[in-house]
Amino acid sequence: MEVVSKWKSHGGTQGVYRHASNTCSCDMTFAVFVPPEAEDGPCPVLWYLSGLTCTHANVMEKGEYRKMAAELGLIIVCPDTSPRGDAVADAEGWKMGTGAGFYVDARVDPWKQHYQMYSYVTGELPALIEKNFPVDMKKQGVFGHSMGGHGALTVALKNPDIYKSCSAFAPIVEPTTADWSVKALGAYLGGGPEDWKEYDACALVSSGAWFSEFLIDQGTADEFLDDGLRPWLFEEVCKDAGIPLTLRMQEGYDHSYYFMSTFMADHLRWHADRLK
Amino acid sequence: MEVVSKWKSHGGTQGVYRHASNTCSCDMTFAVFVPPEAEDGPCPVLWYLSGLTCTHANVMEKGEYRKMAAELGLIIVCPDTSPRGDAVADAEGWKMGTGAGFYVDARVDPWKQHYQMYSYVTGELPALIEKNFPVDMKKQGVFGHSMGGHGALTVALKNPDIYKSCSAFAPIVEPTTADWSVKALGAYLGGGPEDWKEYDACALVSSGAWFSEFLIDQGTADEFLDDGLRPWLFEEVCKDAGIPLTLRMQEGYDHSYYFMSTFMADHLRWHADRLK
Repeated sequence: MEVVSKWKSHGGTQGVYRHASNTCSCDMTFAVFVPPEAEDGPCPVLWYLSGLTCTHANVMEKGEYRKMAAELGLIIVCPDTSPRGDAVADAEGWKMGTGAGFYVDARVDPWKQHYQMYSYVTGELPALIEKNFPVDMKKQGVFGHSMGGHGALTVALKNPDIYKSCSAFAPIVEPTTADWSVKALGAYLGGGPEDWKEYDACALVSSGAWFSEFLIDQGTADEFLDDGLRPWLFEEVCKDAGIPLTLRMQEGYDHSYYFMSTFMADHLRWHADRLK
Repeated sequence: MEVVSKWKSHGGTQGVYRHASNTCSCDMTFAVFVPPEAEDGPCPVLWYLSGLTCTHANVMEKGEYRKMAAELGLIIVCPDTSPRGDAVADAEGWKMGTGAGFYVDARVDPWKQHYQMYSYVTGELPALIEKNFPVDMKKQGVFGHSMGGHGALTVALKNPDIYKSCSAFAPIVEPTTADWSVKALGAYLGGGPEDWKEYDACALVSSGAWFSEFLIDQGTADEFLDDGLRPWLFEEVCKDAGIPLTLRMQEGYDHSYYFMSTFMADHLRWHADRLK
């Protein structure tokens, strides 16, 4: 693991790191914030999964998480959203290819060679983080924005023993039917929507997956609300399954980091209450 | 004045605006955050002046000012750092030309046609802001980072009747001798260092300019500390002049937004205490 950059910030350390990933068969970059509390012992770790077009850097620069993470003693890990590099398959547009890994393990050529983001964020990267940072791996939470909200909900539902808390900002809750994910899931996974359900939060809940509770913030002025996001679908299946969901429709907010950063401190507090 | 973008954020509105500037003879872009408190009446306005290479956007994205500004009821205005456009003179490198206006009124060709940033940020832009936003112009403060710290100190010292509070992150306190400002000041103003003193915070204080008090945060790991910044020079002249200066040397912090955003909330609170 190589240190790309390191800054003192809010009393802790914001770093950017790079390593050769076996899972994605390419170099992968990620960001980690370590709060001052880590000097006294291991801290809970919160995984932040980013949205379409993002790298590790967007939330690191615009997410406004350091002040509250420092106060609460949380380590924040921000992975990239896809494999990267000249050898990695790509596609036109922003809904598929680099920047659009959708946190799945691809099964189809030419995607399967590198697009193994589910295994990367739940397996290889956690092992690397555990080895190199003062983390308490018994206290892990996960959250994310948009495509990363989809990532957070699905990795939590598939691993309720690993993640103790989960929240999302404007998540894609049913990617097997959302207009901005169908093409990518078809390409990466092959087959039809029936074959993609293990990566669909609504389908997972409908088929019996369980998680203790969820928090979701969603802007009412989000330009993707009706076509891509539709949190009411998740509200319905959670209600049927008896999974507590706090869905907050936030008046006048859109899909941007200006929305997400507004509720960042709230989410960190929510996770800390459940992890500490 | 044209609205470029507008987002709801932290209960208020973050906007980006453009107008045809008479002072700079080009279109100028700036950012304004209006807190929710402005719905109930005019709010104090705090001017943030950015550093070399920046536009209005850097601090808007990375400065982490909205949460605290919303809590305190402060309007934050972030101007650009120079004139822009094809007609505007430019130079190689980042220490002169666009992104490096140094908050002076240029006197020499080809700079004087557009580089009138002192008059722009103290005259034309305040008039535009007063006309278009719910500001209480009797309650103005100014702060900034690096070149923008120099800007904040000098506009405050030259206009103690207009600005009621002033602070800076890692400011260039003596630009007439600092290695990253001498070339630009020479080009913009002509003559020698003696002729640039009205734009030098140390020289202004030495020659009798007065301000009520200053707050400065400076990282000890700042790579520009010894050559470009040297806050001890300002400390010395303020001491001699009897101007209260709180200079905080912040252990381990560098020159980046990761440093500056760490102390942003502190500075906003400091200004609010003096403006409200």
